Amino acid sequence: LFGIANVRAQDPLPSWNDGPAKQAVLAFVKDTTDKSSKKYVEPADRIATFDQDGTLWTEHPLYGQAAFALARVGEMAPSHPEWKQKEPFESVLARDNAAMSKFTEADWMQIIAVTHAGMSTEAFQGLVKGWLANAKAPRFDRPYTDLVYQPMLEVMKYLRTNGFRTFIVTGGGQEFVRVYSEQVYGVPPEQVVGSSIATTYVNTNGKPVLMREPKPFFIDDGPGKPIGINLFIGKRPSAAFGNSAGDTQMLEWTQSGDGAHLMMLVLHDDAKREYAYGPAANLPDTHVGTFSEALLTEAKQNAWIVVSMKNDWKRIFPFDE
Amino acid sequence: LFGIANVRAQDPLPSWNDGPAKQAVLAFVKDTTDKSSKKYVEPADRIATFDQDGTLWTEHPLYGQAAFALARVGEMAPSHPEWKQKEPFESVLARDNAAMSKFTEADWMQIIAVTHAGMSTEAFQGLVKGWLANAKAPRFDRPYTDLVYQPMLEVMKYLRTNGFRTFIVTGGGQEFVRVYSEQVYGVPPEQVVGSSIATTYVNTNGKPVLMREPKPFFIDDGPGKPIGINLFIGKRPSAAFGNSAGDTQMLEWTQSGDGAHLMMLVLHDDAKREYAYGPAANLPDTHVGTFSEALLTEAKQNAWIVVSMKNDWKRIFPFDE
Ligand SMILES: [Ca+2]
Ligand SMILES: [Ca+2]
Repeated sequence: LFGIANVRAQDPLPSWNDGPAKQAVLAFVKDTTDKSSKKYVEPADRIATFDQDGTLWTEHPLYGQAAFALARVGEMAPSHPEWKQKEPFESVLARDNAAMSKFTEADWMQIIAVTHAGMSTEAFQGLVKGWLANAKAPRFDRPYTDLVYQPMLEVMKYLRTNGFRTFIVTGGGQEFVRVYSEQVYGVPPEQVVGSSIATTYVNTNGKPVLMREPKPFFIDDGPGKPIGINLFIGKRPSAAFGNSAGDTQMLEWTQSGDGAHLMMLVLHDDAKREYAYGPAANLPDTHVGTFSEALLTEAKQNAWIVVSMKNDWKRIFPFDE
Repeated sequence: LFGIANVRAQDPLPSWNDGPAKQAVLAFVKDTTDKSSKKYVEPADRIATFDQDGTLWTEHPLYGQAAFALARVGEMAPSHPEWKQKEPFESVLARDNAAMSKFTEADWMQIIAVTHAGMSTEAFQGLVKGWLANAKAPRFDRPYTDLVYQPMLEVMKYLRTNGFRTFIVTGGGQEFVRVYSEQVYGVPPEQVVGSSIATTYVNTNGKPVLMREPKPFFIDDGPGKPIGINLFIGKRPSAAFGNSAGDTQMLEWTQSGDGAHLMMLVLHDDAKREYAYGPAANLPDTHVGTFSEALLTEAKQNAWIVVSMKNDWKRIFPFDE
């Protein structure tokens, strides 16, 4: 009896149901840290990369950063009376969800330009902090940073305990995620790789700032993920976690390295506790965080592990019972 | 007597003569690591950034990476008979130093395009490794990586021993420096920030590579240094070390942060043991690693510490007596 209690207390992944996904994580850590294993990985090379939206926190009905941008448009609107007759702002201010769901990349770039640029990096970080402190995610009515997945926090912590460095590799904004990554995920700013806009160095009277410009600099999505990993880390990950088409190349890149690998994709098949979307596995189609049938096919071909939120996760959020 | 021997044995900077520069490093470390000091810096925020060429290793008569590029042109020449009548290659192949010293940025970009691009990142790393193993720096007739400054290695090690992370922030090629940074400086690849060209993800038959393209992506020089520091590290350094105009903004950025700072510039005033160039301080003018009179003026105004190689350094290279 004491033995059983002890084993339970030591389970590094208590929010995971037993099954192939949990076993794969445990086996990967055992192999990469056992010096007698052929799959042993030197501590300096223990790199694990995690997509954020839909892999570490909830991305429905809208990416957290998009919610921030739309809230900013609302706050800025009084100084921009022209927005009432100017798209895409008009639809944002009218809370026209149908119109917003059809926004093009160019529409979003206009929104990003006014909400994410034209200010210093410090000013931007301050806005993000302020928003995080007050905004509530729909349905759960909690701060966005409460909606992180407890099982993934356990994987990150377990990997770090075993000498891995955990990096976030996100299509979202690097500077945005860095504001809360340490507190929420235990990932310091320098281990966040993301999309970014250009910045300009401006030194006025010995008070230099980096001004954020309305111009994309790097898009960390799809092929941009291995490119960003090489650029920022310079080492190939041994483990990579994602949930949608934009993670395909990161997982391919991870798998093609020498030694041990672990590639996992989170499938949102739990409408009751979180959200359900695909369209893979006959789940509802979605514009946010698409898990396509093609991705599921590639996952099967490459023996990537598909995590079922419904079946593999005992608990979804830290605040769940 | 035992006490004196003990103090000597513990000197973390034995290659530095006693003086304001050495004292500044010692005082900085004392202040930033003493919890009772107002200048205490939390371990997670202990960041020090180092320019490479002329700050950590010799850059005369030519940057190491330029020597690599010119050697590559020579190796590739048999497959490019047209280069014999085509500038800038003609001058390179004729070893026409006068002509090469007048190469424009566009000339160098042509040389970079053929020597640094059109191959995978792995292939490029292999070429750099091969070159480093065989190339000899002029005058000293030693491998380029022997020509690192022992006093700076001591500063880097001393900072790391005290919880600092040491980053290289170089105008040189990030992928180039990463090949040897760990072995030569104890700086892992992910702590090298540098200039880079664009890469493209190409996956042929499940064997993905990153192809290096003949297109600049990021220039980590001048204002690019604080931009690169923010992009790659996301934290402001407490200490920064450089040697030329391209480091100005990095030092300004470091100085403008909260808490303790240390800003140092290496002045090459030692023609006997290394090289002497300015044109600041009435030293010979140079096209490589210019230390201008304007930089010296800004250094004095801002109380940046100018390190005299001649007076502050007891020993220059690890191989010196
Ligand atoms: Ca995602
Ligand atoms: Ca330099």
